[in-house]
Amino acid sequence: MNGYAIGIDLGGTTIKAGSVDAEGGIMKRVTHDSLAMSGPKAVIGQLITAINDLIGQHPGETCSGVGIGSPGVVTGGSVVKNPPNFAHWERVDLGDAIRREIPLKVEVENDANMAAVGEAKFGAGREHPNFLFVIWGTGVGGGIIIDRKIFYGSHGGAGEIGHLSIDMNGPQCNCGSRGCVESYIGQRYFSERTRTALARASADSRTSGILKLVNGDMQKIEPKIIARAAEEGDPLAKAVFTEAGTFLGYALASILNVLDIRIVVIGGGVSAAPQFVYDAITAATRERVLKPHKDGIRILRAELGNKAGIIGAASLVM
Amino acid sequence: MNGYAIGIDLGGTTIKAGSVDAEGGIMKRVTHDSLAMSGPKAVIGQLITAINDLIGQHPGETCSGVGIGSPGVVTGGSVVKNPPNFAHWERVDLGDAIRREIPLKVEVENDANMAAVGEAKFGAGREHPNFLFVIWGTGVGGGIIIDRKIFYGSHGGAGEIGHLSIDMNGPQCNCGSRGCVESYIGQRYFSERTRTALARASADSRTSGILKLVNGDMQKIEPKIIARAAEEGDPLAKAVFTEAGTFLGYALASILNVLDIRIVVIGGGVSAAPQFVYDAITAATRERVLKPHKDGIRILRAELGNKAGIIGAASLVM
Repeated sequence: MNGYAIGIDLGGTTIKAGSVDAEGGIMKRVTHDSLAMSGPKAVIGQLITAINDLIGQHPGETCSGVGIGSPGVVTGGSVVKNPPNFAHWERVDLGDAIRREIPLKVEVENDANMAAVGEAKFGAGREHPNFLFVIWGTGVGGGIIIDRKIFYGSHGGAGEIGHLSIDMNGPQCNCGSRGCVESYIGQRYFSERTRTALARASADSRTSGILKLVNGDMQKIEPKIIARAAEEGDPLAKAVFTEAGTFLGYALASILNVLDIRIVVIGGGVSAAPQFVYDAITAATRERVLKPHKDGIRILRAELGNKAGIIGAASLVM
Repeated sequence: MNGYAIGIDLGGTTIKAGSVDAEGGIMKRVTHDSLAMSGPKAVIGQLITAINDLIGQHPGETCSGVGIGSPGVVTGGSVVKNPPNFAHWERVDLGDAIRREIPLKVEVENDANMAAVGEAKFGAGREHPNFLFVIWGTGVGGGIIIDRKIFYGSHGGAGEIGHLSIDMNGPQCNCGSRGCVESYIGQRYFSERTRTALARASADSRTSGILKLVNGDMQKIEPKIIARAAEEGDPLAKAVFTEAGTFLGYALASILNVLDIRIVVIGGGVSAAPQFVYDAITAATRERVLKPHKDGIRILRAELGNKAGIIGAASLVM
């Protein structure tokens, strides 16, 4: 590729866009409100503004195309269905709407898949043609990369690993099922589990670690705080994060058995967790996966952080 | 295809081989001992005998090739690794060994995948480009069909759905993990669960249904007996089989979420179960799967029965 590609990470609040070079480096960046509550036309307008902004910053250079990572189910590399937190949006051919205004190659893809593609091309997955990408953040999602390409399943929605149940009699998940791994380790559920553990703990442990960091305000507990307390040696923080990693490992073992994949790349907000969490995930996965898989199991930390969306989106049109 | 293709179902006891026409009909059949305990050379000799037998029965007709479904992990369409119940067999290039003696196209594939391919081409999956094939028998295995082709995963072993855990604290499975769906509904485990349920039941139910069919010999209880008792109206038999179907449905919901597949074809010995079992599987899957999938869920009975292996194997070389 000569010139650059444009990658866009479309979120419910913000459009993050960047021009990306052939090595996956971000050259220029722009940010706009996504106006998600104002309907599809407003969002499309903001996207076009962002794209034109970037093109304007590269006079005389060739833009190879525009990749857009979007929430919701995306089909045919273009149509976005029911993105959560976007108003008046059922089914919009986003690719087509952009192409009408900007005569470039436009590819639209689910945001989790985009991040997976970014890691596949320029991040932790670049030496692994097949891997499972996990987004561990507010929810637990993912993407499946086979032969360096996205595995879509029948309808474009493959990779919903957060809704693999690890206990058929477990807690109710917001999806309607029970015991989904997301209902143990998704940010909100994980924070709640930690609050419960603190409430149950002795008065002694209640004065330590996590509570000091939030000045006693239980509502401020979130994975970032738990991670910091663990790194400072708080035993309860370490225990709850190890347990969360273990639950994720149990889910991964089941998935890796079904898919015969051995490499897992973990991204999303919670993936900044300390190394002992990765050790717990790896140990639990190895303990539970079928014997022929055990030795090959590797649980890797994503490398592109919050740039994975932009870089992944751009890489689709390079 | 003019002429015929040869399909072989290689088992630990018997080699079942057949010539198959372009519509998936079996023309001629031969059966030989597999001599699995006598080592790879003996097995290969028996395979060659079976193939030559069939060729001899079709003088003047063209054989398009030989497909072989084998236990164990199969890689590269040729190499068979560690088939259970075969002595002195670690890694044998079975395809190559056959081709040296018989100058035809030879394709070797895992037996579960072969049965899946048979259903895809000529059975319950023929109108469904994407489906999950489940073998419910002694164990619980399967194959994943995407775009009418086998999905292999990284190392050729994808589809081990029996070792998806439905309860991380569940019973120990022979694979070393806990709560694998096989450890609830695989033939041996399922029979054992039924024996336990009978032992716990009141004296009244202990005199009914299942025990009558086995003349009181608990060791003779197996899924076929439980199915018959259920069909004759025995409430305990109906309850345990409904529970088994429900467990399978819970596992399927998790798998279908990850793969975004909506069609499941169930084969294997236990798949001859009465319709109420399929109803239980369908209800449990629909109850637990993500909302966008619910309406499309279909749980189908395999159509090729014990001929799926031969027909699937032959279809690979048509």
